[in-house]
Amino acid sequence: MSIQSINVRNQFRGRVREIIEGPVVSEVEVETPSGLVVSSVITTRSVKELGLAPGREVIALVKASEVAIAAL
Amino acid sequence: MSIQSINVRNQFRGRVREIIEGPVVSEVEVETPSGLVVSSVITTRSVKELGLAPGREVIALVKASEVAIAAL
Amino acid sequence: MSIQSINVRNQFRGRVREIIEGPVVSEVEVETPSGLVVSSVITTRSVKELGLAPGREVIALVKASEVAIAAL
Amino acid sequence: MSIQSINVRNQFRGRVREIIEGPVVSEVEVETPSGLVVSSVITTRSVKELGLAPGREVIALVKASEVAIAAL
Amino acid sequence: MSIQSINVRNQFRGRVREIIEGPVVSEVEVETPSGLVVSSVITTRSVKELGLAPGREVIALVKASEVAIAAL
Amino acid sequence: MSIQSINVRNQFRGRVREIIEGPVVSEVEVETPSGLVVSSVITTRSVKELGLAPGREVIALVKASEVAIAAL
Repeated sequence: MSIQSINVRNQFRGRVREIIEGPVVSEVEVETPSGLVVSSVITTRSVKELGLAPGREVIALVKASEVAIAAL
Repeated sequence: MSIQSINVRNQFRGRVREIIEGPVVSEVEVETPSGLVVSSVITTRSVKELGLAPGREVIALVKASEVAIAAL
Repeated sequence: MSIQSINVRNQFRGRVREIIEGPVVSEVEVETPSGLVVSSVITTRSVKELGLAPGREVIALVKASEVAIAAL
Repeated sequence: MSIQSINVRNQFRGRVREIIEGPVVSEVEVETPSGLVVSSVITTRSVKELGLAPGREVIALVKASEVAIAAL
Repeated sequence: MSIQSINVRNQFRGRVREIIEGPVVSEVEVETPSGLVVSSVITTRSVKELGLAPGREVIALVKASEVAIAAL
Repeated sequence: MSIQSINVRNQFRGRVREIIEGPVVSEVEVETPSGLVVSSVITTRSVKELGLAPGREVIALVKASEVAIAAL
């Protein structure tokens, strides 16, 4: 599943694993079914408005221009 | 495996699936072993300097502050 | 109206005014009802997948961490 | 009015409506004359150096590459 | 010298060394007096509106939240 | 010296000058040999995982698409 109406190419669906809440921003960790963990920093206001909590199903989104590449 | 010395929390290891090359920037698609596709836009200079081509093993990196969250 | 399920605080609803299409990325200008113009650079693939064209109703989204402030 | 010498295409002029101050970063809300609210997360050091406070006239700036588009 | 009214902490003053112009975005290389080269991708419209050309004095600006750190 | 395998064009080598630690994110200031100061906001988790402290040698990295240009 994905948010089809948005241009953001990178969408990682999973569940919230952990939230570290700060006064202004919080770190939200999302785990996908395949075990991939995606870490996000968003405003604590957004955490509350979205009702985020461990176990909550979410999609992590990243614009392609924000992705760097390292060669191995 | 990961680049352990960098602070970027989100590292997706995979192989280059496709490159759409433009005069200034190019779109690079990376596919992870679990089938996840991560899309990146980087300078075409970097594509050449890194010697990127389909099949090449790479890591896609994203800063946590660039990741948005959508609730389902 | 807004996309309520996403954490992105800044949502500007409007219509596509102009698209400058390039081989990899395109510039999309969105005009809000109050006359504000928001400019976006996204992949040309996304422009096509979303079926963007002048007059199309869209929402421009910006993460709060991407907004700089200048004092007057 | 705008900062004409900068390449940032998206400039939203308004007044600071609210500041949520944290130890490292703060959230600054800017309201434009047409009632649009733009939210920004910047360092608390910058908040102090710029002398930001509710009512202060500011410009919120966003690079076009940071703007995502959702179709309605 | 710097743009004192903006919150962007990282300001690198220098001269344009090279511009690679594309149909939508261009790469602009800025060289500081100490020989540091900063590379920027901005819209080609902005390149034209700012009248950028090799030798032109400019400031490259980066928000602190966009800077990653690698340990050596 | 630089991290040659990564596409990030802008790499500023230096030493950590100061760290302002917050509960979720921290501000890290890096000073280059030529006296340039680069400011970064990263997660406090990363600060700890990388073992960052004043005097530590690091590289500050910035994607070219995150760099804005102001004309003088």
